[in-house]
Amino acid sequence: MNFKVPRGTQDILPSESWKWQQVESIIREVCDMYRYKEIRTPIFEQTELFQRTVGDTTDIVTKEMYTFTDRGDRSMTLRPEGTAPVVRSFVENKMFGYPDQPVKLYYQGPMFRYERQQAGRYRQFVQFGVEAIGSADPAIDAEVISLAMEVYKRAGLTDIKLVLNSLGDSESRNAHREALVTHFSPHIGEFCKDCQSRLEKNPLRILDCKVDREHPLMASAPSLTDYLNESSTAYFEQVKSYLEEIGIPYELDPNLVRGLDYYNHTAFEIMSTSKGFGAITTLCGGGRYNGLAEEIGGPSAPGIGYGMSIERLLLALEAEGKSFMQDPELDVYIVTLEQAARRKGFKLLNELRKAGIRADMDYMDRKMKAQMKSADRFNAKSVIVIGEDEVNDQVVQLKNMGDGSQQKVSDAAIIETIKEQLK
Amino acid sequence: MNFKVPRGTQDILPSESWKWQQVESIIREVCDMYRYKEIRTPIFEQTELFQRTVGDTTDIVTKEMYTFTDRGDRSMTLRPEGTAPVVRSFVENKMFGYPDQPVKLYYQGPMFRYERQQAGRYRQFVQFGVEAIGSADPAIDAEVISLAMEVYKRAGLTDIKLVLNSLGDSESRNAHREALVTHFSPHIGEFCKDCQSRLEKNPLRILDCKVDREHPLMASAPSLTDYLNESSTAYFEQVKSYLEEIGIPYELDPNLVRGLDYYNHTAFEIMSTSKGFGAITTLCGGGRYNGLAEEIGGPSAPGIGYGMSIERLLLALEAEGKSFMQDPELDVYIVTLEQAARRKGFKLLNELRKAGIRADMDYMDRKMKAQMKSADRFNAKSVIVIGEDEVNDQVVQLKNMGDGSQQKVSDAAIIETIKEQLK
Repeated sequence: MNFKVPRGTQDILPSESWKWQQVESIIREVCDMYRYKEIRTPIFEQTELFQRTVGDTTDIVTKEMYTFTDRGDRSMTLRPEGTAPVVRSFVENKMFGYPDQPVKLYYQGPMFRYERQQAGRYRQFVQFGVEAIGSADPAIDAEVISLAMEVYKRAGLTDIKLVLNSLGDSESRNAHREALVTHFSPHIGEFCKDCQSRLEKNPLRILDCKVDREHPLMASAPSLTDYLNESSTAYFEQVKSYLEEIGIPYELDPNLVRGLDYYNHTAFEIMSTSKGFGAITTLCGGGRYNGLAEEIGGPSAPGIGYGMSIERLLLALEAEGKSFMQDPELDVYIVTLEQAARRKGFKLLNELRKAGIRADMDYMDRKMKAQMKSADRFNAKSVIVIGEDEVNDQVVQLKNMGDGSQQKVSDAAIIETIKEQLK
Repeated sequence: MNFKVPRGTQDILPSESWKWQQVESIIREVCDMYRYKEIRTPIFEQTELFQRTVGDTTDIVTKEMYTFTDRGDRSMTLRPEGTAPVVRSFVENKMFGYPDQPVKLYYQGPMFRYERQQAGRYRQFVQFGVEAIGSADPAIDAEVISLAMEVYKRAGLTDIKLVLNSLGDSESRNAHREALVTHFSPHIGEFCKDCQSRLEKNPLRILDCKVDREHPLMASAPSLTDYLNESSTAYFEQVKSYLEEIGIPYELDPNLVRGLDYYNHTAFEIMSTSKGFGAITTLCGGGRYNGLAEEIGGPSAPGIGYGMSIERLLLALEAEGKSFMQDPELDVYIVTLEQAARRKGFKLLNELRKAGIRADMDYMDRKMKAQMKSADRFNAKSVIVIGEDEVNDQVVQLKNMGDGSQQKVSDAAIIETIKEQLK
């Protein structure tokens, strides 16, 4: 029987995992600068949480969720996105009562969507996201966006752009909704079944349809921007001005609506503009969700956040022809020539590691030449050679792989000698 | 509608997540010393992978798995443990062909078992584990054990012990198996249904039974140790001698069999001996699995590894009355007095962060006094105060929260001044 990684998922092997670690370090550092704290929610949640928040008519909920019944007969769903679980935790743990509002959170971990397979899309993908919950200050919209830009910048990405829109408050959205119904109703028969059902339930989702995106009525659809009321417009103006204040350029796109129901006011995406990048250019998407906490039984707590895929960040880096620097794997490789030497080598190996030195030796009973080849492959800075003579004389041979020099060092002095060399 | 975290799972909130980050840093550092590389496998695998490897008669497979059918009608299971997925990946990605054997891997991430709820047991828990695959050298058994001990030591745990056993090779295990059948058969009616079915399929699992653990025949059951053949005994002696070589004490426990079918030869657990710790004292468990790669369709590739729960590591630390040190949250908090000051503050905030300084400000339109209180709660090292005068004069007031001193600093010099202070 041969087993394979489940379709649409991937193993991240050692040849790649160090890049993920680097991205995670950058994320941790930047979030630390911005005082965003990590939160970890479970991999699955009650199914209804996502139905209620992401929206009954969205592709995510209708087609893409990994839903199952647990042994206690409860319907659970592997989380398809990170915001609803974080807001659930905010409400359940009464974070609205914390003395410092907004509560600034970040998360990173796997998300799950059963999507059609294509390049750059995985059914299990890793998302980093931040959520600032409890403030309706337009400056915090600019802050969360700048945090994302800073992560991309530190990772080395340069070919990116910020695309911005406002979905307005509920009054604006209702006015727009009516205009959409009026616009699409006469020709709704030319649209897909999903769109026909969206017309009554949630006409905004029609603009998001992957099937009908070329229909002429799409381009001429009434734009949300024209239906923003005064306070929504004023809010959006402030967000833009804070972005300008800190030197973050943006493009406006009135068609940017995002595929989740809970957004209002600010909506944004960060996209790769690199030529080498594939058809799906969105790296990061997010927005404001002022009604979400109430929707799931909490008090009013306006929030804003986003999610970015780590897979796409790495793909975008590749498309730009950039890469992280990888450290050499080892400080020291120990080569031993026979059994007594091996025992001494094993003991020394253990002492080196305890001293914080990255060290390794052979576990395959191989000849000296093969052991030296391993040392080369690991890019070891030094090699320690131990044979019978060295055991008897309580010394080791220490070879510097940089300049090829070799010296005899006493057992008592070897740790200090290597520490000195590594400085 | 109120939503709650799924039963048996937990949110890790900011008040706790920094401890997890510290443990993960320790793990990454130690694995780096030992040249173990991270691998990340998906959250779920084909169900049969676990049935085949963990074993059809184990509690994990019969009672505890989160199994579901995906939208492509395939049976999938949230991983209940980390070894089978890693070995699956080793085989699928032909790592047995890598020039350097053994392949040394580590993982950390959530595992899932639908267990009865009790203190210290979660249905989603986080496991760190290592797997060294491709070598049957007893020295590597000692290495993987010493890596676990080093993680605990660096985390600050002192009240721990290593418990060791050998399950022998298949010849030894078969001899023992027959002895077990002979021992239990006459009285098997006194045992639970599960044990009765285990008698034929896998009598070793009887020793692992949670229901019948007090039955007198348990204590008098034939010990595997008495059935080890010569080569198994010799292997075990060498493992013990390598452990002695590097100063790791151990206890022998012939009843240590582990709850997974794939183990042979070396089996071990690391336990907390702290008085404050609960009934379940195992922190880490593992062993050798020489037939596992073949079992899932790969070539012969002997391996050894273990998994440790991060939850239990943190609980054990608490039981020992130890804790990690937490850094102060902020370098600088910016207090602003009116709208123009706020714009200037927001811009400065952004510059501070870009310079790598951990900084924050108010987003709730609060009075100066309330802003100062936040600065206190965040343990900010400095506070920058900006009012109308400071905007006009292109300066800020910089207050050192350590000694209470205050100085006027020009806008142009503020970043450098703060950097200097943080040195």
